Amino acid sequence: MRVNDQQYRTIWLCTEDPTIVKIIDQRHLPHHFVLEDISSVEEMCIAIKDMHVRGAGLIGAAASYGMYLSTLISSGLGDWKRKITQDAEHLLQTRPTAINLSWAVHRQLEQILSSSDVSEAQKSARDEAQAVADGDVAACAKIGEYGISIIEDLSKQKGDGPINILTHCNAGWLAFVDHGSATSPIYAAHDKGIAVHVWVDETRPRNQGARLTAWELGQHGVPHTIIADNTGGHLMQQGLVDLVITGTDRTTAHGDVANKIGTYLKALAAEDNGIPFYVALPSSSFDWNLQFGNQIPIEQRGSEEVQYMRGLHDNQIKEILITPAASAVANYAFDVTPARLITGLITERGICKANEASIKQLFGDLMPG
Amino acid sequence: MRVNDQQYRTIWLCTEDPTIVKIIDQRHLPHHFVLEDISSVEEMCIAIKDMHVRGAGLIGAAASYGMYLSTLISSGLGDWKRKITQDAEHLLQTRPTAINLSWAVHRQLEQILSSSDVSEAQKSARDEAQAVADGDVAACAKIGEYGISIIEDLSKQKGDGPINILTHCNAGWLAFVDHGSATSPIYAAHDKGIAVHVWVDETRPRNQGARLTAWELGQHGVPHTIIADNTGGHLMQQGLVDLVITGTDRTTAHGDVANKIGTYLKALAAEDNGIPFYVALPSSSFDWNLQFGNQIPIEQRGSEEVQYMRGLHDNQIKEILITPAASAVANYAFDVTPARLITGLITERGICKANEASIKQLFGDLMPG
Repeated sequence: MRVNDQQYRTIWLCTEDPTIVKIIDQRHLPHHFVLEDISSVEEMCIAIKDMHVRGAGLIGAAASYGMYLSTLISSGLGDWKRKITQDAEHLLQTRPTAINLSWAVHRQLEQILSSSDVSEAQKSARDEAQAVADGDVAACAKIGEYGISIIEDLSKQKGDGPINILTHCNAGWLAFVDHGSATSPIYAAHDKGIAVHVWVDETRPRNQGARLTAWELGQHGVPHTIIADNTGGHLMQQGLVDLVITGTDRTTAHGDVANKIGTYLKALAAEDNGIPFYVALPSSSFDWNLQFGNQIPIEQRGSEEVQYMRGLHDNQIKEILITPAASAVANYAFDVTPARLITGLITERGICKANEASIKQLFGDLMPG
Repeated sequence: MRVNDQQYRTIWLCTEDPTIVKIIDQRHLPHHFVLEDISSVEEMCIAIKDMHVRGAGLIGAAASYGMYLSTLISSGLGDWKRKITQDAEHLLQTRPTAINLSWAVHRQLEQILSSSDVSEAQKSARDEAQAVADGDVAACAKIGEYGISIIEDLSKQKGDGPINILTHCNAGWLAFVDHGSATSPIYAAHDKGIAVHVWVDETRPRNQGARLTAWELGQHGVPHTIIADNTGGHLMQQGLVDLVITGTDRTTAHGDVANKIGTYLKALAAEDNGIPFYVALPSSSFDWNLQFGNQIPIEQRGSEEVQYMRGLHDNQIKEILITPAASAVANYAFDVTPARLITGLITERGICKANEASIKQLFGDLMPG
């Protein structure tokens, strides 16, 4: 994806020194574009937990590269498999909701534990991390190829004016390795010359929409407007939204999705106003072991994310207190949108309905039992 | 209402100098408690437009006091009625959605224009402003007396634990002259020893919940927790909300309400989870000339309210940029919650359903024709 007209991924192995993983430290966006070198699994744990990197697909890729880093520093240890298993545990504990994290870690761990020595483990882990990243890019590209049809159809029905698409949080290329999930059909449509305009939910408390989605759409030249999270319902009532597309951090076998807190409210409004509500996801976001959304663990994060806001003052990043110091704060990071509110799932294998039978038609080979 | 254990109203005539109206400049809350002297109708227009004062009832009282100030500086003019009529126009243009503003201005203007001289107009305008303020206090107190029954009933049903009440924006005493509308039953219940806990929606982009509602609940000792606006749906799904009460800036004869942007989303979530959703209002918030919510003008405010955030840094109020400088922003201040989503209206004459027949039973004498 483009940044200042250069092509980037969100994570990659340093060409000059393959013991270093390069990431974009997303905490500084949109004000500063900062790259960070990650050279240990401990640093990767911090980067995931403190959200230098975030988003379903990128967390998976970061965890996979983290496991590769674990194999590097374990080369001198006697019981290297034990150390790597512990590192895997630490990675798994960084974020509880996104399934991609455990998916990626377990894939790595299985291969590493079946390696006969450290150097074999290193090679397989490096290949696996690269494969996860490449697979993420390919899956997201396919999501765009399938999803563009929804936008094209709406554009033909509407006749004139852009298709107004509302999205929540950042399920853009910054949340994956490239393209994004929810944004992939949008980029595809824009690149094909179909007029689109994106309503970007600010997405409190971490402002991933206002900080990240707006920034990446701007870098790509896609027209967009930032709105407070409260606004989407009114826009839908006024006929100013043609389509909603969001991402998901975990999707059950029945099609319930856990996504950034507030997604459920937009799905309710879309239903109340007869607006199609799609969720875009690579199949790595499915949790085949869960049937229903109420089984998904919902992460609670620190109150400081609600109490303090970071932004630019006199060209420096400053943090300000925005609540009464004495008031309690709760910070749930995700909510569950039930399948009944979802028009369809846009995946790398095509578009399906959010129910078990329809999901099975596309992904029966991945389902257990 | 209490501030540092002293009794306050949000607006009052200065005892020592009755040509000065005192207000709390709410832009500095929760960090600093600042009083402001308003000594001209022009200053009052700025105070309303720039939200030194805000909230349905307080805007009405402020406009009424503003008209009184207009009579003071018009005493030397020949065509004083023309000047006061112009001032009324300026006041009416400060905020378009809250009906209390035009209700208060027109009540004043009628009496002033029927006065035979300026000094008679001054006296009547001063009495009228005082009556509007006192009337607001009395109406809000009655809302508490009626509304407490809802909380009491829920408390009996629930048995143990506090009644969890979600509110959006600030319909507290800071939005009125005292007591508030949505908060009045809450304060009444708390004062009576019924355990209540309030989920306070942050209320982007102006953060009236996090800044004002949390602050005033804290001053009164009511347990409360600030949440991002995105959170309410999840809390309702988890059974953590027993009741929603909001205010309204304008209510139609059929019971549709325009309230702070985002209210509609919470009403949808309450309906989806079978949670009672009440709107509290003094009858001054009714617009008897409108039948349905889509007739209510919805204010759009400046993009800087979304782009910048004010808060405390090193004990000073600082403003930070939180969006990409190049991104467009839309800032709708209100949305409409249709009557079908509202369990009931809590008014100074009792609780009624949100439909024309039920509203007419309580307020038939106020309805035109």
